[in-house]
Amino acid sequence: MSGNTFGHLFKVTTFGESHGGGLGCVIDGCPAGIKLSEKDIQPELDRRKPGQSKITSQRLEEDKVEILSGVFEGKTLGTPIAMLVRNKDASPKDYEYLKDKFRPSHADFTWEQKYGLRNWQGGGRASARETVSRVIAGAVAKKILKEKLGIIILAFVSQVKHIITNIDPNKVTLNEVEENIVRCPDKAAALKMIKLIEKIKKEGNSVGGIITCIAKNIPPGLGEPVFDKLSAQLAYACLSIPAAKGFEIGSGFNCVTMTGRQHNDPFYKKLDGTIGTKTNNSGGIQGGISNGENIILKVAFKPTATIMKTQESVNDRGELIKLENIKGRHDPCILPRAVPIVEAMTALVLIDNYLLSRTNKLQNI
Amino acid sequence: MSGNTFGHLFKVTTFGESHGGGLGCVIDGCPAGIKLSEKDIQPELDRRKPGQSKITSQRLEEDKVEILSGVFEGKTLGTPIAMLVRNKDASPKDYEYLKDKFRPSHADFTWEQKYGLRNWQGGGRASARETVSRVIAGAVAKKILKEKLGIIILAFVSQVKHIITNIDPNKVTLNEVEENIVRCPDKAAALKMIKLIEKIKKEGNSVGGIITCIAKNIPPGLGEPVFDKLSAQLAYACLSIPAAKGFEIGSGFNCVTMTGRQHNDPFYKKLDGTIGTKTNNSGGIQGGISNGENIILKVAFKPTATIMKTQESVNDRGELIKLENIKGRHDPCILPRAVPIVEAMTALVLIDNYLLSRTNKLQNI
Amino acid sequence: MSGNTFGHLFKVTTFGESHGGGLGCVIDGCPAGIKLSEKDIQPELDRRKPGQSKITSQRLEEDKVEILSGVFEGKTLGTPIAMLVRNKDASPKDYEYLKDKFRPSHADFTWEQKYGLRNWQGGGRASARETVSRVIAGAVAKKILKEKLGIIILAFVSQVKHIITNIDPNKVTLNEVEENIVRCPDKAAALKMIKLIEKIKKEGNSVGGIITCIAKNIPPGLGEPVFDKLSAQLAYACLSIPAAKGFEIGSGFNCVTMTGRQHNDPFYKKLDGTIGTKTNNSGGIQGGISNGENIILKVAFKPTATIMKTQESVNDRGELIKLENIKGRHDPCILPRAVPIVEAMTALVLIDNYLLSRTNKLQNI
Amino acid sequence: MSGNTFGHLFKVTTFGESHGGGLGCVIDGCPAGIKLSEKDIQPELDRRKPGQSKITSQRLEEDKVEILSGVFEGKTLGTPIAMLVRNKDASPKDYEYLKDKFRPSHADFTWEQKYGLRNWQGGGRASARETVSRVIAGAVAKKILKEKLGIIILAFVSQVKHIITNIDPNKVTLNEVEENIVRCPDKAAALKMIKLIEKIKKEGNSVGGIITCIAKNIPPGLGEPVFDKLSAQLAYACLSIPAAKGFEIGSGFNCVTMTGRQHNDPFYKKLDGTIGTKTNNSGGIQGGISNGENIILKVAFKPTATIMKTQESVNDRGELIKLENIKGRHDPCILPRAVPIVEAMTALVLIDNYLLSRTNKLQNI
Repeated sequence: MSGNTFGHLFKVTTFGESHGGGLGCVIDGCPAGIKLSEKDIQPELDRRKPGQSKITSQRLEEDKVEILSGVFEGKTLGTPIAMLVRNKDASPKDYEYLKDKFRPSHADFTWEQKYGLRNWQGGGRASARETVSRVIAGAVAKKILKEKLGIIILAFVSQVKHIITNIDPNKVTLNEVEENIVRCPDKAAALKMIKLIEKIKKEGNSVGGIITCIAKNIPPGLGEPVFDKLSAQLAYACLSIPAAKGFEIGSGFNCVTMTGRQHNDPFYKKLDGTIGTKTNNSGGIQGGISNGENIILKVAFKPTATIMKTQESVNDRGELIKLENIKGRHDPCILPRAVPIVEAMTALVLIDNYLLSRTNKLQNI
Repeated sequence: MSGNTFGHLFKVTTFGESHGGGLGCVIDGCPAGIKLSEKDIQPELDRRKPGQSKITSQRLEEDKVEILSGVFEGKTLGTPIAMLVRNKDASPKDYEYLKDKFRPSHADFTWEQKYGLRNWQGGGRASARETVSRVIAGAVAKKILKEKLGIIILAFVSQVKHIITNIDPNKVTLNEVEENIVRCPDKAAALKMIKLIEKIKKEGNSVGGIITCIAKNIPPGLGEPVFDKLSAQLAYACLSIPAAKGFEIGSGFNCVTMTGRQHNDPFYKKLDGTIGTKTNNSGGIQGGISNGENIILKVAFKPTATIMKTQESVNDRGELIKLENIKGRHDPCILPRAVPIVEAMTALVLIDNYLLSRTNKLQNI
Repeated sequence: MSGNTFGHLFKVTTFGESHGGGLGCVIDGCPAGIKLSEKDIQPELDRRKPGQSKITSQRLEEDKVEILSGVFEGKTLGTPIAMLVRNKDASPKDYEYLKDKFRPSHADFTWEQKYGLRNWQGGGRASARETVSRVIAGAVAKKILKEKLGIIILAFVSQVKHIITNIDPNKVTLNEVEENIVRCPDKAAALKMIKLIEKIKKEGNSVGGIITCIAKNIPPGLGEPVFDKLSAQLAYACLSIPAAKGFEIGSGFNCVTMTGRQHNDPFYKKLDGTIGTKTNNSGGIQGGISNGENIILKVAFKPTATIMKTQESVNDRGELIKLENIKGRHDPCILPRAVPIVEAMTALVLIDNYLLSRTNKLQNI
Repeated sequence: MSGNTFGHLFKVTTFGESHGGGLGCVIDGCPAGIKLSEKDIQPELDRRKPGQSKITSQRLEEDKVEILSGVFEGKTLGTPIAMLVRNKDASPKDYEYLKDKFRPSHADFTWEQKYGLRNWQGGGRASARETVSRVIAGAVAKKILKEKLGIIILAFVSQVKHIITNIDPNKVTLNEVEENIVRCPDKAAALKMIKLIEKIKKEGNSVGGIITCIAKNIPPGLGEPVFDKLSAQLAYACLSIPAAKGFEIGSGFNCVTMTGRQHNDPFYKKLDGTIGTKTNNSGGIQGGISNGENIILKVAFKPTATIMKTQESVNDRGELIKLENIKGRHDPCILPRAVPIVEAMTALVLIDNYLLSRTNKLQNI
């Protein structure tokens, strides 16, 4: 148990370092008979890859995925699907001078404490480059959820520093999100965000923000009670993304200032005969189980730890040092590239819980 | 995999309904040789039990715990520790008129969707009464953490509705928390909170709030990379608590409006020769692994779903109904009783990760 | 992970010592909506309980099971089913003189090595009394398998020492097995076995034997490839039973002396249109997956380690000792009481794999 | 949970088909700081690879392993170690005529039942070629066990059809095993075995046999009680190997004809002050936990299912067919190549249990 596997029935095991041979994952438990090829996965990787715009890291990686196993004549076999992305534009030399130094708010110090050694090249496995594996696996999950259940998962940047959007997540479309390089569907806000990020980049500083994610057409009944509430699993999934500091489901921290009367979501019968709620403070989840309403969650991301400013720190002997002109390519704001990652993690939680739900009741088995 | 087990090495399996024979848990993986008796557990249960003050549910439960196995001559055997609390003051009749009705923002509808049937007596297993099992298991974890590593875990109510405390979590003591019935160490705020909860109770309404939790004397190196970051596990643990809607580690959502320069925690050498950070926006966790600073987290709890107001809803045939005078005893604000639960979940995460960390590196094995 | 949980979706966690408060289990993952009461479980426990005949241990235990949770109005809720059997006729004093001594071929020495201490009362958790929990859980599994899929699981004693039966397992009935106290459906052999066990008992010695188990009406497609072959899971399940030393599936060790031509099972179309095999050397499992033929397995059990003969051994200081007149009630041959245990373990493997199989292919999900 | 992962703390996830892009594994949980390179692994793969002698399959595969991640500057990082072997000499065309036919005692029928489709090229993932991944992972485990604990694991062919060896497993050396192509340390028996296999091969038939495995220098205390007895885990590991039909620990099925007095292993104090047993019917495991004596186990392998004889079978429409001249390269006896596989599985069980044992008792944590 070393934390590199996600899921119970749709089980994803990931591997790879920022500057090693490559990154990838093995999906064990993908049902047989699903049409799948690299073409289903590459577009999601392209949304995540560096160098995609002026406000992202300038590292150039094609991030071409190869399916090594588990697919035969265009369909999944039910056997493990191994997928690999080779590292191409690694430049470990950039990091050599850092190998005995602990960068503030990076994983350098903690991983060395844990393991007694570390790969200092671009953060090794603690680099956000590990999320390549999440996006690959998430692409498979998204495809199955969409084709089998009509589930749509859509994330977008809803805040960068003080720039807030005012947009109904239920109405956002993929096109609106992908229309601009910051992946914020509020055009006016997006322009401000881009300007801010460019300015911050010039200053050698960094900023954080919030990603909102919505999942539609969710069947009621997903999630497991007590410890594995759907909300708990989503919190776990999202907080595992590098740089995540906070998570909200539905009303989130806003629930605190409401009364029960204001917060409770009244049930009603919808036109199609199914039961829905008039408001959605629950964020689509009640008692840990999906209720059929849209699932809405938010994730707070801190400003990138890598900045170009002079910083105080220590080396591995505990001596005070000054870190100046940190090399290595980085994102002044990771939010735009984190959008497909939040979607991927949401998809992994949903597919796993959908499969788990197949055995809940006598009627299903 | 039905979500009633928590942990990997210190594995807690829980069971029980609000009005069935009882509640309990089995801890598998507790190291042998730990001194343990019911006396170590009962005080924590007493902090959680209903009827403890005028602002909690008036259900009267002694909540006496019995250790059924795994302890011999006062010490743990390394075998499963089963513990049981019998339900005494159950009054299922109170709920009979609800058996075909879905209470808003409760688990009634979703659990029936999931399982095709449900225990309608006091919410069955979806009742917050299931947290008895968490507190029992957490008490064992807390004891080991304290005796073996000196780790102190302390939660307190830091906000109820708009009443905010202004207190440094690093300085709070258990006495200050336990000194008043709302478990808020800020005396002035505590008084306001108690008044507010009494008022809200009279109105038949409910309120939510925030619990802050701190864990001190944490060894650096706890947590597993990628999916099982310590922060991700804590988020999962806390969001699994009934009524939780949001989670923050360290700076939490506040990180969003800071720049990297402001947010980064500079390392320095402490007087004792170890390495620390001057600020603690990281909340004691960097790259998913503990850095030795205090772990600080916050959990947002919604207002209790059970209110005494008339509400619209539907029954299990989808017909519109009015819910009036909901019977059953409940808490107008669950925060005071949730304090030991947040501590318990934090303890369960920490003990599990401490055990996991014993096999991380060559030096340890 | 301390080895007290069995299964992946139908997950059974067991607890309890031979002379502690009691024994029991928690089943997590039992589908909701199954009719269940203590009456479904007690008969299986009665087949396992001590004191049932002159050739078993004379300890007197009613072994009455209580369902603590997970069942409501006669049906499973989908929540954990906790079940408890209290110890009544424990006599720890019998074992006091053994507390610093290691009995040969018992678990005394190894458990003390592992844990640094042990419950010396009747073997503690290493006692075969822990199988109470297996039989309880297995009874639930057997019921579901039978009602839902028509699967019949039947074990019987096929050999005691040199007394071998010559009987076709495909034709054995439960009545034939239960007709005599040794649970061997070959009447002539049964008589010899009973005589032998009585003789051995008088001598203060013990004997072992073989249990054969058959499972009928198995749907093809159960089992998971590679590590979790159905045969591997059955071997694991059966070797986990106290005193088990060997396992065979289908032809077992006899396969060694056959050629491929002799051993291969030819396929043919059965009268009902489904595909079967003419012979069944595969024991119902090919490539790790059930093929629809009867599953047939054998388990070898060693002679009971507790004997009334004088034996050499050491105490916990390593000093040579003589063990004489070992007290405590025991079975001169555990085979008759192990029959329901082998059935229980087989049932637990099958129900778990049946649930797992619900998510294997696109057609099922 | 689809059966392609092995282990709890030293967790191996495998992937790959006989004729796809390649085979490999990801080891998650390997402690950091272990010296490791491809050179540690390749020799074990070479013992397994096809084409190594006149009595094995003539498929030509270099089976060169590449470490993709988890190793840095010659040492393990504690992060996942992904390893890949490309398929080179795949010849899928050989199998095309078989794509709608079910070969007797192969996995063709059962996997198609399970998944609704299958990779018919050389058996796909049901091919024994999947064991490449086991040997890779096992090589890492063996290295750590040897360097850290001095544990030696050694398997050998002890029987082929009726040809039995008469050799003390405690005295066998690696050299004796590797000295001949059948991997039987009894030279006289080895010659007979080779002759028999050559004869059987000419006839287009196949034979099975027994592999004995011994593990020395085992610390007492390994294994987990109840379900995860060391013996149960070894049975599970060995029965998961393709073609395995039976398993024995220590006395195995021979225990059946012994009395307790004969079977019990008397304890004594060894010259070095530690406690040992005079006989070893227990096979090094008592009460499921290692006692420090050599672990000795046996695995029965059936004759290879692929034979060159005419056989009756059915196709996927259930029609009777005759299978003649089955193409594809195969082993007339898989025993010689299965030797490193049995060692690998034994090593994976032992390393995992060693890591688990680090958290058993207060003294260790």
